[in-house]
Amino acid sequence: MTINTTPPELPKVTTGALPASRKVWKAGTLHPEIRVPMREIALHPSAGEPDVRVYDSSGPYTDPEAAIDTAAGLPRHREAWIAARGDTETYLGRATRPEDNGRDEASGKLRPFPRAHAPRRATGDRAVTQLAYARAGIVTPEMEFVAIRENMGRDAALARPRDGESFGAAIPDHVTPEFVREEIARGRAIIPANVNHPELEPMIIGRNFLVKINANIGNSAVTSSMDEEVEKMVWATRWGADTVMDLSTGRDIHDIRDWILRNSPVPIGTVPLYQALEKVGGIAEDLTWEVFRDTLIEQAEQGVDYFTIHAGLRLHHVPLTIDRVTGIVSRGGSIMAKWCLHHHRESFLYEHFEEICEICRRYDVSFSLGDGLRPGSIADANDAAQFAELETLGELTQIAWKHDCQVMIEGPGHVAMHKIKENMDKQLACCDEAPFYTLGPLTTDIAPGYDHITSGIGAAMIGWFGCAMLCYVTPKEHLGLPDRDDVKTGVITYKIAAHAADLAKGHPGAQVRDDALSRARFEFRWEDQFNLALDPDTARSMHDETLPKEAHKTAHFCSMCGPKFCSMRISHDIRSEAQKEGMAKMAEKFREGGALYLPETEA
Amino acid sequence: MTINTTPPELPKVTTGALPASRKVWKAGTLHPEIRVPMREIALHPSAGEPDVRVYDSSGPYTDPEAAIDTAAGLPRHREAWIAARGDTETYLGRATRPEDNGRDEASGKLRPFPRAHAPRRATGDRAVTQLAYARAGIVTPEMEFVAIRENMGRDAALARPRDGESFGAAIPDHVTPEFVREEIARGRAIIPANVNHPELEPMIIGRNFLVKINANIGNSAVTSSMDEEVEKMVWATRWGADTVMDLSTGRDIHDIRDWILRNSPVPIGTVPLYQALEKVGGIAEDLTWEVFRDTLIEQAEQGVDYFTIHAGLRLHHVPLTIDRVTGIVSRGGSIMAKWCLHHHRESFLYEHFEEICEICRRYDVSFSLGDGLRPGSIADANDAAQFAELETLGELTQIAWKHDCQVMIEGPGHVAMHKIKENMDKQLACCDEAPFYTLGPLTTDIAPGYDHITSGIGAAMIGWFGCAMLCYVTPKEHLGLPDRDDVKTGVITYKIAAHAADLAKGHPGAQVRDDALSRARFEFRWEDQFNLALDPDTARSMHDETLPKEAHKTAHFCSMCGPKFCSMRISHDIRSEAQKEGMAKMAEKFREGGALYLPETEA
Repeated sequence: MTINTTPPELPKVTTGALPASRKVWKAGTLHPEIRVPMREIALHPSAGEPDVRVYDSSGPYTDPEAAIDTAAGLPRHREAWIAARGDTETYLGRATRPEDNGRDEASGKLRPFPRAHAPRRATGDRAVTQLAYARAGIVTPEMEFVAIRENMGRDAALARPRDGESFGAAIPDHVTPEFVREEIARGRAIIPANVNHPELEPMIIGRNFLVKINANIGNSAVTSSMDEEVEKMVWATRWGADTVMDLSTGRDIHDIRDWILRNSPVPIGTVPLYQALEKVGGIAEDLTWEVFRDTLIEQAEQGVDYFTIHAGLRLHHVPLTIDRVTGIVSRGGSIMAKWCLHHHRESFLYEHFEEICEICRRYDVSFSLGDGLRPGSIADANDAAQFAELETLGELTQIAWKHDCQVMIEGPGHVAMHKIKENMDKQLACCDEAPFYTLGPLTTDIAPGYDHITSGIGAAMIGWFGCAMLCYVTPKEHLGLPDRDDVKTGVITYKIAAHAADLAKGHPGAQVRDDALSRARFEFRWEDQFNLALDPDTARSMHDETLPKEAHKTAHFCSMCGPKFCSMRISHDIRSEAQKEGMAKMAEKFREGGALYLPETEA
Repeated sequence: MTINTTPPELPKVTTGALPASRKVWKAGTLHPEIRVPMREIALHPSAGEPDVRVYDSSGPYTDPEAAIDTAAGLPRHREAWIAARGDTETYLGRATRPEDNGRDEASGKLRPFPRAHAPRRATGDRAVTQLAYARAGIVTPEMEFVAIRENMGRDAALARPRDGESFGAAIPDHVTPEFVREEIARGRAIIPANVNHPELEPMIIGRNFLVKINANIGNSAVTSSMDEEVEKMVWATRWGADTVMDLSTGRDIHDIRDWILRNSPVPIGTVPLYQALEKVGGIAEDLTWEVFRDTLIEQAEQGVDYFTIHAGLRLHHVPLTIDRVTGIVSRGGSIMAKWCLHHHRESFLYEHFEEICEICRRYDVSFSLGDGLRPGSIADANDAAQFAELETLGELTQIAWKHDCQVMIEGPGHVAMHKIKENMDKQLACCDEAPFYTLGPLTTDIAPGYDHITSGIGAAMIGWFGCAMLCYVTPKEHLGLPDRDDVKTGVITYKIAAHAADLAKGHPGAQVRDDALSRARFEFRWEDQFNLALDPDTARSMHDETLPKEAHKTAHFCSMCGPKFCSMRISHDIRSEAQKEGMAKMAEKFREGGALYLPETEA
């Protein structure tokens, strides 16, 4: 792992392959031009089993062959796919204004992304969304791309015996492009892919696919910079973030977003309300539909792939929050609630929702309908305010679908374990199986500093129950802005939650990696065990703390039990003993001899 | 938090109160001589609510008034209670031999605990177990102690509305000494309390009480020392470990155990087989009932509170493990399997189980019936070997109860989420509700270095389903021997899991701390938020990384969102606005005006 050297004033990002890993690509069949990346982890020859292919969200940064230049951005490989559809036009986009970066007038401090690209939009009032294509029976390159990606290079013929409880999900043994099309047409899955984010490697979010995770980055008025945020994005995808939300709220957020988008291989989500608020000097009451609409177009032209829109929070919901322990904890939710109350008016997001759809369909920006009234504490979980808003989100889902817009629904928050499934079941019912996208949920409030864990528990469970994407929580939640290390801890914790959910749902490909790692563990192939881990660097360094020597990488024990007490080593002795005499036969012979206490089951 | 200064050659342990905390005691009613410790967390006066009392497992080490001298050991406060029962005698115990410390002959390296105590045992063949007393209708001081302790100082009259799903548990609003007696008599709970561990502050393990956690410590042949292990014990209890298992397998383990026991305020568990194996030079085949029996008496005289005994692993079970991915991963299980196979004989632990009971009942050593065949990988979960052993453990439970011995049952291991509940349900059925004590379970195998998290997920779930005690897993699991930092991380993670389980079960006292912390969070009482956290030090330091100033401890924002975007601050504005005009009325007025899209529910 090396830090590549772009000129000092440009963002430095982490590049290089993961240990024992190489990037491999699989071409499309319907669309031979697509190249779907996967990571292949090489095992020791003694393993006598094939190398393990895993899902790879890290983009070109982990490809040693790729030339990374953050000032140039990533290759715009989707541009040809989009142009070939012949339903979009490039045009002279909206000019950037100082206030887009939270400034009064143009200032030397700004650092725009060096290359400008003319934005693209649908011609006329066409919908250029994956949903529109799916409904029209078209299998796009994006659809075939995610189909290949979801199979992680598994042989279509190789269907494992299914083991799991999926609570009504319908995960196929093998994902076909046609299956992807059907799920998108049904509204049960989305491919967030703005026509202005051609650098994107498409991914899919839906309960019948691998559970995905999102990493939040972004500066705040108090701390951080563009350079840090671009590296956080690259760092998050290196460890497995499937999408990244840029929640910047400080200055220069237009430019920071440009830098992130041009260098991001994963979909980027935002909460446009944050920038709109900056444009009106941070005064919620001064927000207007016009300022918000302008911000949507600004961000759609930049290439944001999904917008969090808190249109489900209505004026008459606000009183429901008055007796809560922690009130409204969604930033967007609290801003809109304040606006509604001040003006004694219905939310302009709700009133103008159809116009928002008309914008999103022209760029294929997906909706992430925000849960402005999510509970911020165990005490407030599953209350009237939360579920009233969820019902409105169900109503808005139908409207978005009417406009051929892709939709997912945001969920809580803080929820004790026994109340988690109700959230999932109610969301599926209210929103007609549109993908659910939850933050955690945190299963207790008493561990600030460890909320990646309090929430990882809830995230694994709701992922099992059917949640399509899990928004990570870092150790800094409630305490401060996460740094690079917090981002990694959050991502790894959520990869664990998502994978535990895939296993429990019975995803046909999930257990392959567990089994390969367990065999490596049982056979003392330490290097293979490290390399197959979600975080090979940490696994290796923890082992080497006590047993640093190279010889220990093949030792039949570790410092936890030492040589004499290694149960796995003894298990090998047992197996070799078993060879001598047929073990089953020998055990049977003994049983005839009779034991002292025969259990009822044997009596 | 300070490191106290005992002479350099003696173990240094962490002492001092936790932030804003003082130790308070509640006296008994039936037994006025008992003093039950609790930790009281002081809140800022502006909170306008009572200080919060929490369960305190840390013993005298967190009492600034207590004089700590590890060479003297803790006060032997239970001695009087035990003597008063008049059913035990002190006697000249077994003499320590060099081989007890894994040595060929006495060696200067040994460092015995300075003070010898004559061991105590039942007179004649009496049972001096809490189970025997409970069945005889006697409420012991230990029973009243845990009753007071479980209520955490809550007012008996103050019964909260119940909220939770307990899956058939029967958690009372208020725990009475009589309820404790009944649960113990029923075999549904245990108080591990050897008559030779009078320093102990009694605690109870059962599904109708607070979920407990165990921390494993102990050196291995490869690393660590007595000093480190004593501090690990104190450190683990400081952060909330309810019991500690000394799994030492290296040299000097008799002496290390002595030092730990004499200084431990919590029950100490061991796996006697480990020391027995050391006595026969680490050759499993050379183990004999006589060596094992001698080790049981040695450790019972020292004061070990519970023994892990792998008597459920029978010869005819071994063949069931042959096709496993990871074979036998229990150290004790693999040793016994090898012994059985080598001698083609039934396990001597199984054949001599009644004699083991006769030893345990004379000292009140509780059984922790070991799961020698627990799965070591997702692939092996819930297989024939695991469940065959569990049925045998149910049979042994009945035998132990026949001898008035207290029993809990050990459980897995590595289990995907959808297979966890089957483990709990089967254990309750096979073992007639004897307390279940599980390791994790780990919900995936792919994250070595993060197995506190992969297992914390499973631990929270099985705790919810009815598991009485959760054995922690540290980040070093599978990689090396945990150090002091790993111990803390493991303990905090498992306190989270246990508490999340208590909340989900609807424990009447559990949510008090969550609510107090959430109110502190909403009211920007940062110090209260830190002090109420499971780990105040980490919460404070994470906050201070970006906002170190004292002024920020009352600031109405943190660096995560900055002042303009703090949803909680905005919520306060909303509430004050709401005062002006009756909010509900105003919202109602608006609704008459009609919204654009009326949801079905409103149409």
